[in-house]
Amino acid sequence: MSTDTQQLTGQSILAGINTPGNGAEVRGFNPATNQGLDPAYSLIDASQLELATAAAEDAFASFRSLDPETHARFLESIAGNIEAVGTELVQRAMAETGLPEARLVGERGRTCNQLRIFAQVVRQGDHHGVRIDPALPERAPMPRVDIRQRKIPVGPVAVFGASNFPLAFSTAGGDTASALAAGCPVVFKAHNAHPGTSEIVGRAITAAISDANLNPGIFSLVYGPGASIGQALVSDPRIKAVGFTGSRGGGTALMATAAARPEPIPVYAEMSSINPVIFFAGALSDDAAGHAKAYLGSVVGSSGQLCTAPGLVFVPTGEEGDTFAAALRTEAATTAGQTMLTQGIYNSWVQGVQDLGSQPGVELLAQGNKGETENAPAPSIFSTGVAQLLGNPVLHEEIFGAASLVIRYTDAADLATALSKLEGQLTATLQLNDSDHEAVAAVLPILERKAGRILVNGWPTGVEVGHAMVHGGPFPATSDTRTTSVGTLAIERFLRPVAYQNIPDSLLPAPLQQSNPWKLTRRIDGTLKNAGEQA
Amino acid sequence: MSTDTQQLTGQSILAGINTPGNGAEVRGFNPATNQGLDPAYSLIDASQLELATAAAEDAFASFRSLDPETHARFLESIAGNIEAVGTELVQRAMAETGLPEARLVGERGRTCNQLRIFAQVVRQGDHHGVRIDPALPERAPMPRVDIRQRKIPVGPVAVFGASNFPLAFSTAGGDTASALAAGCPVVFKAHNAHPGTSEIVGRAITAAISDANLNPGIFSLVYGPGASIGQALVSDPRIKAVGFTGSRGGGTALMATAAARPEPIPVYAEMSSINPVIFFAGALSDDAAGHAKAYLGSVVGSSGQLCTAPGLVFVPTGEEGDTFAAALRTEAATTAGQTMLTQGIYNSWVQGVQDLGSQPGVELLAQGNKGETENAPAPSIFSTGVAQLLGNPVLHEEIFGAASLVIRYTDAADLATALSKLEGQLTATLQLNDSDHEAVAAVLPILERKAGRILVNGWPTGVEVGHAMVHGGPFPATSDTRTTSVGTLAIERFLRPVAYQNIPDSLLPAPLQQSNPWKLTRRIDGTLKNAGEQA
Repeated sequence: MSTDTQQLTGQSILAGINTPGNGAEVRGFNPATNQGLDPAYSLIDASQLELATAAAEDAFASFRSLDPETHARFLESIAGNIEAVGTELVQRAMAETGLPEARLVGERGRTCNQLRIFAQVVRQGDHHGVRIDPALPERAPMPRVDIRQRKIPVGPVAVFGASNFPLAFSTAGGDTASALAAGCPVVFKAHNAHPGTSEIVGRAITAAISDANLNPGIFSLVYGPGASIGQALVSDPRIKAVGFTGSRGGGTALMATAAARPEPIPVYAEMSSINPVIFFAGALSDDAAGHAKAYLGSVVGSSGQLCTAPGLVFVPTGEEGDTFAAALRTEAATTAGQTMLTQGIYNSWVQGVQDLGSQPGVELLAQGNKGETENAPAPSIFSTGVAQLLGNPVLHEEIFGAASLVIRYTDAADLATALSKLEGQLTATLQLNDSDHEAVAAVLPILERKAGRILVNGWPTGVEVGHAMVHGGPFPATSDTRTTSVGTLAIERFLRPVAYQNIPDSLLPAPLQQSNPWKLTRRIDGTLKNAGEQA
Repeated sequence: MSTDTQQLTGQSILAGINTPGNGAEVRGFNPATNQGLDPAYSLIDASQLELATAAAEDAFASFRSLDPETHARFLESIAGNIEAVGTELVQRAMAETGLPEARLVGERGRTCNQLRIFAQVVRQGDHHGVRIDPALPERAPMPRVDIRQRKIPVGPVAVFGASNFPLAFSTAGGDTASALAAGCPVVFKAHNAHPGTSEIVGRAITAAISDANLNPGIFSLVYGPGASIGQALVSDPRIKAVGFTGSRGGGTALMATAAARPEPIPVYAEMSSINPVIFFAGALSDDAAGHAKAYLGSVVGSSGQLCTAPGLVFVPTGEEGDTFAAALRTEAATTAGQTMLTQGIYNSWVQGVQDLGSQPGVELLAQGNKGETENAPAPSIFSTGVAQLLGNPVLHEEIFGAASLVIRYTDAADLATALSKLEGQLTATLQLNDSDHEAVAAVLPILERKAGRILVNGWPTGVEVGHAMVHGGPFPATSDTRTTSVGTLAIERFLRPVAYQNIPDSLLPAPLQQSNPWKLTRRIDGTLKNAGEQA
């Protein structure tokens, strides 16, 4: 894909065709300067959306029948096309989001890595989940016929781009990559905060489809009025699952719409988390100042606009905790705020910090400086005790941006009580040294029930894309605690099992045929066997 | 467990304690004689239900920490206790349901087999879903820390007994067995149509808990006023998932309640399916009369009260189809109806058959004779064409009981159109011979999207409990198409993944420890490896 095709059109891409919208216009907006960006993007209406969903349904039959190699190369080709765009993509994303270049270069790498790891998953084929219970014609009192199971893709998927990851959770991000890997066409609703970034990536996907001679209905990129077109998309009977990353209000609205359909469908919404971090006494006695600096770095990075930012930090009362608090104040004095993604998000942050600071018993513990750009507020850290946390639901709410609340706890019982009252979380973090193991062991069972990921001596911001990652957790962290939106397990969200009983081999799909043409590991009579063991 | 403990008490079992209910009374009822059965069962109220859910929550921590061998033996002990009851269980179930002895003996075998196969699953441990991405300290630009994933049980589960399988889908049925295998305590709401059967099995579970010195909160059996106590149970914040088998109305009501909770939870409801059976011309030309007889047998067995009963049968127009229809009439003339489960179900059947028979273009094709017992209606088979099916939603509704609708189709296009308009189904069945393969291949992709199980040259009634079975399917067959309620995959319904990042080995749970003490097959860096390969 040559870069001279990157002149932005301001149009949706409906099954490969650039299409001006019938509705109003929006523009990208540079939050660092408060200036609008060209071009204007015209928004589609419900009848135009139908073109995308109908094309996705039409494309499903052929897309889900691809051989693994063609399918995997298609995903890799998207990654290659995104890289081929070069600096233009990063520059546009910087202008639209205010995020720094290094962060966006890293995010682009993660996005392409994500597509390539799903290509490996497609080639390997474990996600087909093949199970074979061979016939037992001699069994008494009743013979058993041959039964085989595989997982098939659910159908077209609606994906909503997140504001805070314009690449890795957006157009070709984790939801799109895992849905395409499962064999599901995607209708992608762009986030209006980074329309140009979305278009560039959307073209990379479209070019990959065209180069592989696949059905263009596999992917559409739509710009639309946020709430109404989103509701129309989730209501469309051809859509069979939804991926979303965003606010609790937005996610629960989509959940309600999906549940009210004549045919309810699953919604995978990653929403709200305050990501508790627990300091144990031993860890603080090792290096209170170092921990304070690391904490502040995790709060301020990406202007705090990360799903896994540490919003709630438990620090023991007593001398070590006081040293930590003092170091935090010192560190904050030389820390500047960074530009936030949009004016709307900035305004919400200001309101949230004001609300938190005015709660009874909550004090401002440390504050940084405003940044030099627009929409770059002073990072703010508050402090209170366990009693206040237990008694006040406001203290459990996520403030999206560089703000955090320190909870001083008196002893193990105090800590356990507080943790057991938290809502569901994406992450829970433990800062400890060897002397803390007994105390840690006491809270681990509580945290397993609260969080999707538990980590030790690190910071939750920074989500590795691998096979073991869980970016999920109980509500309201996500709408569906049975899965993850990052890592290869995410493909399971878009699959469902089908059993084939007594079907002649020539009529079976490839993954189930006796000759095992795709060389899959399959579960035979309950035991996993690789291709060589299935003689 | 000695049989002299089997004097029925008419009481709920709340965490091991027989407890009379504060509410009204119900009785088992013999549908073959229209006579009430002793004893009366007193119904609990909401405050008594709280005892069960609180005990389940209290028991969860220890139950989910059991070693595999203790856990597996507990499941096997339930099976042994059920068998030890002897004929008393089958006799009581016969009296309460009108089902014949052979069917209930078989169902008891299936129920115990189901518990034992889940014991094998627990011993093997693949359901822990362990994934390990080892640390890569030298990776550039960023090192990777060790990340490990396992699945843990979701928490206490509410299970609702089905009327039509008083053993296999009831007190110790598939939902209970898979939830207990996952490590989830169960609060079981008995179906009021077979309270005595439920109590006998409930005691078998309670005795197994006691014998193994487990926390009695692992299981409660409650009798309650159907709708209200069911809603209270699903609303209880300690309940984290729901298993249900029953009507579409009942299932969707629970789905709505679960979705409206402050913390929404998954509902696995198996509800409504008409299980299309498709005859191709070749199959009929082989043996139209034999097929007619087998069809009638599948319709009439268990008085048609099976989730997978063939409610919709596609037969080609033309001579072979006419021969089939004539044979059906002949066969029906010597076929008698069997007692239905309850008077209420009988009345619903009568109403459903009356509604179906009065639809435009629908004719009564064949009718059997009434049975000699009470509530044993004449099996009824209707006939119409594809145009009527497409235009009339009434023809898509399940009639629970011995009734079925034959659709005469003219050609492949006619058939494909009809199949593509069906709602989601538990099963789809193809009757074919070698000459039909081309026609079958054309409809298979349609059926994969409609059904959880596709079978050839058999009848869908009869669900094998194995590793490859899917008893599931798109809505309204079930509320959640991603899973099954029969077979070992059902355990996945009650699990969720948790990631452990950079956790010291001594703090890791056993399935994740480096020494792999449970000898699990684990996914290392994306590739499944058995215990011996994980050096």
